[in-house]
Amino acid sequence: MTLANLTRHAGEWLRGAGPMHDVVISSRVRLARNLAGMPFLSRCNDTQKQEILDRLKGEILQAGVAPKVFYVDVDAASDLDQALLVERHLISHPLVQADHPRGVAISENETAAIMVNEEDHLRLQVLRSALQLNEAFEEINRIDDLLEQRVDFAFSSRFGYLTACPTNVGTGLRVSVMLHLPALKLSGEIDRAFRAARDMRLAIRGLYGEGTEAMGDFFQVSNQVTLGRSEQQIVDDFVNDIVPHFLQYERRAREELLKNNRTEIDDKVFRAAAVLRAARRISSEETLYLLSLARLGVNLERIRDIELKTLNELFLLTLPAHLQKIHGRSLDAPRRAEVRAEFIRRRLGGE
Amino acid sequence: MTLANLTRHAGEWLRGAGPMHDVVISSRVRLARNLAGMPFLSRCNDTQKQEILDRLKGEILQAGVAPKVFYVDVDAASDLDQALLVERHLISHPLVQADHPRGVAISENETAAIMVNEEDHLRLQVLRSALQLNEAFEEINRIDDLLEQRVDFAFSSRFGYLTACPTNVGTGLRVSVMLHLPALKLSGEIDRAFRAARDMRLAIRGLYGEGTEAMGDFFQVSNQVTLGRSEQQIVDDFVNDIVPHFLQYERRAREELLKNNRTEIDDKVFRAAAVLRAARRISSEETLYLLSLARLGVNLERIRDIELKTLNELFLLTLPAHLQKIHGRSLDAPRRAEVRAEFIRRRLGGE
Repeated sequence: MTLANLTRHAGEWLRGAGPMHDVVISSRVRLARNLAGMPFLSRCNDTQKQEILDRLKGEILQAGVAPKVFYVDVDAASDLDQALLVERHLISHPLVQADHPRGVAISENETAAIMVNEEDHLRLQVLRSALQLNEAFEEINRIDDLLEQRVDFAFSSRFGYLTACPTNVGTGLRVSVMLHLPALKLSGEIDRAFRAARDMRLAIRGLYGEGTEAMGDFFQVSNQVTLGRSEQQIVDDFVNDIVPHFLQYERRAREELLKNNRTEIDDKVFRAAAVLRAARRISSEETLYLLSLARLGVNLERIRDIELKTLNELFLLTLPAHLQKIHGRSLDAPRRAEVRAEFIRRRLGGE
Repeated sequence: MTLANLTRHAGEWLRGAGPMHDVVISSRVRLARNLAGMPFLSRCNDTQKQEILDRLKGEILQAGVAPKVFYVDVDAASDLDQALLVERHLISHPLVQADHPRGVAISENETAAIMVNEEDHLRLQVLRSALQLNEAFEEINRIDDLLEQRVDFAFSSRFGYLTACPTNVGTGLRVSVMLHLPALKLSGEIDRAFRAARDMRLAIRGLYGEGTEAMGDFFQVSNQVTLGRSEQQIVDDFVNDIVPHFLQYERRAREELLKNNRTEIDDKVFRAAAVLRAARRISSEETLYLLSLARLGVNLERIRDIELKTLNELFLLTLPAHLQKIHGRSLDAPRRAEVRAEFIRRRLGGE
């Protein structure tokens, strides 16, 4: 397993199957952990940072957290490889931007990624397709337990797990789902859904993080507070309450559109698929917009000759770093637009 | 032959074949004639207008101007039928707007149309595909001669044929060609070509008449003056000088685009064809824009699965009156957009 292999496919989390996959793209759980007896990273000197990295890298690779694990030395990785890992949601922007020793261990199917020396000593992430929060929670607990057999994590009987940022204190558990809500967006009801979510103390982000909610039809919904509720309660809230809520809203909006605006929807989704198959140059932004519409068309069973998995993969594989990695060399934006169009055309069986 | 038959096809002038058909859509010649011994229409009373109509209608139908001729009583025609004839370039807006007795005789292949009681007592028009001005000129002369054997036209040995508007006095001949100049438009060189044309005392109009030059890539170029040059000289100027000039400009611009901007051109023309085949609702304006690009793609041999004739016909058959006539009933604009999209999809073999 190497980084180059990554671009042959999308990770498990984009396979487009699983519960509620028409609306829920992926489920993610994340834990923050710090070694007991070591300062938080912001207070470590260089020797300590290296010590933490060496220690945790060794333990992770020996703990058997997954059948196969590969480790990426982020310090040594090229800009392109770093960008590739960000696009695949395997590392975070802060990990890229840090200038101290850091790395990530990734399970072969990419469901698990363990960052060392991000904001905390350890950031464990499990990412799965569709609504699989319980499965993701089980997997992250298993990994957490395996590691805890080997190292002591900083823990307070009063606050729970201690973390660099107070908002993560407690269970340290962050739960999030990536939702595809094109019908709520088209019908203009999305703002109402967001207000309801914020009343439930949820954070909403666009596909590209905070402040990008207006771009595209993809939204990441996550819990804001980890203190005061058990980990299982947080997961249960998402699985039994929060996600079904969004799902119901979106599905109803889709039914309404089909009932009252069938031609408008058909026009949008068929044009989108046609342009994806015909374009000779296409930007990231337009690709995202058109793939979203095509995905709606497939989910509404209006488009029948494209698989959801293909579209999900294209969302990822058409991003700048992926395109360049697949192409084997660095490409400027105009050339990427051409390579992207060709790649999409080939995948979708265009002219 | 009836009006309903007209919508089964486009006239000869849109068959997309003939000399220089990659740039020249159609050639038109027009003559203005008035009966001797009768006032111009603006000075006729109602009885005289009816007399002119009856007289000329009878003579035209008996003169054998074409193997088959059908006559349309424009006074009695519905608004839709009038609009249909305007869209087919068989009658003019002024003829529609007039509120006195008027009509048009049309040859079965629609190359010849003879309006009675437009601005002049008679307006003869011959319209042919591509660059066929000499052929059109021969045909209109033949018709003019046949009519002149039966009636006396107002003629002055000093000025030539007398017409209601002084700009038509002399030969009374108006010559025009409809040009498709997408590459000059794309490259921004079109204004230079127009300035040159105006220096040659040519009039340039957009597809929809004066003031619409900025819309679309189609331009009608006509002579402004009919006095002082013989009819044959005017035609020769067009055939040997004016049209080859535009043709050369446009072809060179196309070659440049293919050489330097191949991907940009491919992107535009393939997207256009794809959207035409996929849309579920489409306006007249977007249709014109996309058909123009598709036509460029066919002419550049980038698009190989669409015939020029099909595109030429679509320009006409997707216009509002044609669509409604084909559909057999009146349709509002939103419904027309749907019917138009379906019609185009069927013609182009879309999904």
